[in-house]
Amino acid sequence: MRAVDIVMKKRGGPKSPLGEELSREEIEFLVGGYVRGEIPDYQVSAWLMSVFFNGMSFAETGILTDVMLKSGSVIDLSGISGPFVDKHSTGGVGDKISLPLAPIVAATGARVPMMSGRALGHTGGTLDKLESITGYRTALGVPEFRDIIAECGFAMTGQTKEIVPADRLLYALRDVTGTVESVPLITASILSKKVAEGADSLLFDVKCGSGAFMKTREDAERLAHSLAGTGKAMGKKVVALITRMDEPLGDTVGNFLEIEESMDVLEGTGPRDVTELTLAFGAWMAALAGKARDVDEGRRLCESAVSSGRAMELFLKNVELQGGDVKKLLADRGKRRSPHRAEFRAARDGVIASIDAYQVGIAGVYLGVGRNRTDEGVCPEAGMILAKHSGDTVKKGDIIMEVFGKDDASLGNALDLLGRATTIADGHAASAKSAAPETIILKEITAL
Amino acid sequence: MRAVDIVMKKRGGPKSPLGEELSREEIEFLVGGYVRGEIPDYQVSAWLMSVFFNGMSFAETGILTDVMLKSGSVIDLSGISGPFVDKHSTGGVGDKISLPLAPIVAATGARVPMMSGRALGHTGGTLDKLESITGYRTALGVPEFRDIIAECGFAMTGQTKEIVPADRLLYALRDVTGTVESVPLITASILSKKVAEGADSLLFDVKCGSGAFMKTREDAERLAHSLAGTGKAMGKKVVALITRMDEPLGDTVGNFLEIEESMDVLEGTGPRDVTELTLAFGAWMAALAGKARDVDEGRRLCESAVSSGRAMELFLKNVELQGGDVKKLLADRGKRRSPHRAEFRAARDGVIASIDAYQVGIAGVYLGVGRNRTDEGVCPEAGMILAKHSGDTVKKGDIIMEVFGKDDASLGNALDLLGRATTIADGHAASAKSAAPETIILKEITAL
Repeated sequence: MRAVDIVMKKRGGPKSPLGEELSREEIEFLVGGYVRGEIPDYQVSAWLMSVFFNGMSFAETGILTDVMLKSGSVIDLSGISGPFVDKHSTGGVGDKISLPLAPIVAATGARVPMMSGRALGHTGGTLDKLESITGYRTALGVPEFRDIIAECGFAMTGQTKEIVPADRLLYALRDVTGTVESVPLITASILSKKVAEGADSLLFDVKCGSGAFMKTREDAERLAHSLAGTGKAMGKKVVALITRMDEPLGDTVGNFLEIEESMDVLEGTGPRDVTELTLAFGAWMAALAGKARDVDEGRRLCESAVSSGRAMELFLKNVELQGGDVKKLLADRGKRRSPHRAEFRAARDGVIASIDAYQVGIAGVYLGVGRNRTDEGVCPEAGMILAKHSGDTVKKGDIIMEVFGKDDASLGNALDLLGRATTIADGHAASAKSAAPETIILKEITAL
Repeated sequence: MRAVDIVMKKRGGPKSPLGEELSREEIEFLVGGYVRGEIPDYQVSAWLMSVFFNGMSFAETGILTDVMLKSGSVIDLSGISGPFVDKHSTGGVGDKISLPLAPIVAATGARVPMMSGRALGHTGGTLDKLESITGYRTALGVPEFRDIIAECGFAMTGQTKEIVPADRLLYALRDVTGTVESVPLITASILSKKVAEGADSLLFDVKCGSGAFMKTREDAERLAHSLAGTGKAMGKKVVALITRMDEPLGDTVGNFLEIEESMDVLEGTGPRDVTELTLAFGAWMAALAGKARDVDEGRRLCESAVSSGRAMELFLKNVELQGGDVKKLLADRGKRRSPHRAEFRAARDGVIASIDAYQVGIAGVYLGVGRNRTDEGVCPEAGMILAKHSGDTVKKGDIIMEVFGKDDASLGNALDLLGRATTIADGHAASAKSAAPETIILKEITAL
């Protein structure tokens, strides 16, 4: 077997203009060989570009996912009673859904082994948000991860180096060779990590819009179909929901700010859009895990997890188990704010036509909510509180957002960006708020 | 400027599905940077694969050619009177056309600065053929190359390391990344070397068929158009002829054997197909160089170069100037044969339907005419003399070829391959020989 022949098979020729599906042996030879240092990067880069052009079938993507998965360790959840279900989002601005979702789903009786990421670029990161809780640890070893799941139904950790090393290597190469935007490669990257963490079924939140990785509905649908189809080819139950990410989710963008908003959702007083997404996702996950006969029953279970206080109880239990200071968390709630504060005010009378999620996310990077490089730190107390949303009527000088920065210098850049992010149009309140909760979920794609 | 952005521009995205043309600055940054060791191979490999899929315009291919050309030295022919015209063939079996062509064209008054290659795989090499003349030197320095052109109208040399180093680097990378079969990349590779040697106008012999690099007529036409269009974009006059290479050219395949056959052509007694191609190419080159008003006048000039003996005179003059032993050459003619000899005979009565050029070429590698790796030597006295061609009637036991090997062991493998290469059909002589000289040139493509 020669790497160049495998590249040419995928590339195609006169007899197979779109290339051919590679076999498990071929993908293992090339990708497994690359991870072991046996195949040079220039051959893998030529293969990646061929995949960019010719795509991969769900079965082939499943094989790649499996080969990547087997490049490292897999979390062993045997001995803990399941079923295990997890959610993955392609990332957005103000997207704190994982935080209230995990305890709500755990309260329905399912188990949620959740591995999350960090903020990068305009998107936030669940780990950064959790670490804004004083003492909270997100680098759990496997035994502790298992113990915490067994005790409170869910655990939140970061990806360890042992999990899918192939993905880190391949991603670094894709990043510098113009092969990031390939649906099967994105699918294998996402799925390999999710399958490695031991979930039996998976819910994917594929966001589309200005603040999402997938900007268009069409691209989001292609990724959602690929995640569902590939997951199915690998024997997993998968649901992929396409959701809008044109405006920030909820009323807060920040780290500790989003922890607070998540607690509001757990108490039934969260913003409508975040609450709606959380319950819709929870309903699907309860059904996927077999804890509900269908999504409607799942929804009712999730609602009573909130109304009974059981979900909040599990959340606080988890904070305690992962080393967080529960007393301080409760005392800080509503009070812990950066002293470097500004107000973003309406420049004119009118109706807010849009608040661009991407630019708000970038403003967050300036403020210290997120980061541009993985080795930078974040500020727990930084962020934005949205007093107004699109569709709201404003008078000149009304506060649209309260803004908290890591320092005073950061505020000016952020205010500039927020000014550009926000469009105020003539007229009175629009008939429908463009980010109305009921229109956030655009489509459901299931592969069960 | 970042390499990854250049790769992505060529690769294309939602707004430009077929990628965009790169600018001179971008190609210089990527390819020039690669040659200087500033750009890593994995990024160049991703760009090469994008070019494979998206192609390049003639103008863009011309820029790539020029950037490659400028990676090394260019032969300076200033001070010698031109016009300079050269021919390049994409390679075949029994293709000795360059040998009689250069002196014939020189006899019309044009100057031919010819840089040739070596045998590799099934195709022969002009340099190996010339070096079968005892003493003949093909590694000329530039001053000597100039002097010999000035004295006898043409010189024959190999490519030096200083000529287009970018091509060697890029070709080595293409070879292991599945990006060899790209028309614009092939075009830039061929043209950069030809332009570097200083010719003002160029004739390309693009072969198609089993013994050619381009197997199909369609692929050959694409390459011919690309060579002509790109050459024109670079300010050169170019003619590309598509010629058939399904059967070996002429009656000999070998090194010294082909020198002998070339001398026959120079004396007007060569095989019809080789003579026809030589005169047709020479006619175009005389016209390209402005030594004839048109191809018909060019043809007449070439014919009188042969009949007057002037072409043969220039050939022998060149042999002498390049260190060859003319006396020994004339004495060896018709006699110098390897003692390891066999006969390939007809296995049955019938008509020869075809003699597959590719397999004959591979038989030549076994015999020592050619080589599999660039570091192997060749045997000057090895080769095949074809007593029969397709269309000829044979009786069982008739000699089809006389076979000369570098040793006895090589003969068995070669005879096996020749048996497979030759198809004898029922019936008497076919109405037309499939390799009839008048049907070898399939198409002329000009860009003047």
